[in-house]
Amino acid sequence: MKLLEERIKRDGEVLDGNVLKINSFLNHQVDPKLMMEVGKEFKRLFAGEQIDKVLTCEASGIAPGVMTAYQLGVPMVFARKKKPSTLNDAVYWADVFSYTKKVNSKICVEEKFLHEGENILIIDDFVAHGEAVKGMVNIAKQAHCNIVGVGAVVAKTFQGGSDWVKDEGLRFESLASIASFKDGQVHFEGEE
Amino acid sequence: MKLLEERIKRDGEVLDGNVLKINSFLNHQVDPKLMMEVGKEFKRLFAGEQIDKVLTCEASGIAPGVMTAYQLGVPMVFARKKKPSTLNDAVYWADVFSYTKKVNSKICVEEKFLHEGENILIIDDFVAHGEAVKGMVNIAKQAHCNIVGVGAVVAKTFQGGSDWVKDEGLRFESLASIASFKDGQVHFEGEE
Repeated sequence: MKLLEERIKRDGEVLDGNVLKINSFLNHQVDPKLMMEVGKEFKRLFAGEQIDKVLTCEASGIAPGVMTAYQLGVPMVFARKKKPSTLNDAVYWADVFSYTKKVNSKICVEEKFLHEGENILIIDDFVAHGEAVKGMVNIAKQAHCNIVGVGAVVAKTFQGGSDWVKDEGLRFESLASIASFKDGQVHFEGEE
Repeated sequence: MKLLEERIKRDGEVLDGNVLKINSFLNHQVDPKLMMEVGKEFKRLFAGEQIDKVLTCEASGIAPGVMTAYQLGVPMVFARKKKPSTLNDAVYWADVFSYTKKVNSKICVEEKFLHEGENILIIDDFVAHGEAVKGMVNIAKQAHCNIVGVGAVVAKTFQGGSDWVKDEGLRFESLASIASFKDGQVHFEGEE
């Protein structure tokens, strides 16, 4: 997605350790018009697929997730990182390892929001090692949903997450695929 | 907002301790079309005001916040509950007390996303005691922003948060104002 790649080149900051900081339009400050374009692009990419629900993860997945769900005309569910105190009902849990923080955490989705046979599109803001995606795939499988595919706003394809999704036999689409940060610059796949 | 009040009556669950659970369309599963209507309604209510940015708080504020910002054509910033490991820059902090969890926590916004004199609309999903709103007002004041007002998707007006906002001299608008949960039912303000 050209618009997104240009924005990453313009506003992204490459930090030590292969970390890309894009919190001026995705992870902290959010550009709503860009998120709507992200939603339109996921709709275009997954056209022809039956999708009943979008599954994403708080917090940064919510903006692209809700715009994608808006475009598709379906509900969105966001996995929670803590079980809210008002959440007394049964939940699906999955472990998520954070490579940046070097800690294990958990995500959960209330059971009543995922149904057997439902066609689920998983949306994530940033797929690197893909730990959040693995957690969401785990939860969707516990619920016996049909996973239509995984859509990443940005993927660092050299860190294994996208390969893991494909090895699971799932379709993977990312709107900006980063091949390397050679010389402190963002290099997208397919760029000469 | 009639559409929202009807949805709360239909899908909301009243729990012990004056707790309303509306996680089938706002706090966990999200109805994107309803969120877009929420955004349109905030735009209508704050028409005539100069608004440069929407400030909200993760996680449940993001969906209504991003739709409001989309309608207004401005960026949204969401306050974070943890300082991300990639966030090395200076941040504004504020304390937030959770009445449901009985714990103090903190929220933060990176300094570079709030500028002196910027006109800020604060959006929150649920205003009860108003602790998250107090934290956001605190942060906006630290940044010397001009707070245009506070918009709540749902307010429990009997728990003090909305009064606190008005006592601060700020405009408060909520799309569904709950006056009581008498007999386990939701009663909106102005209902006979």
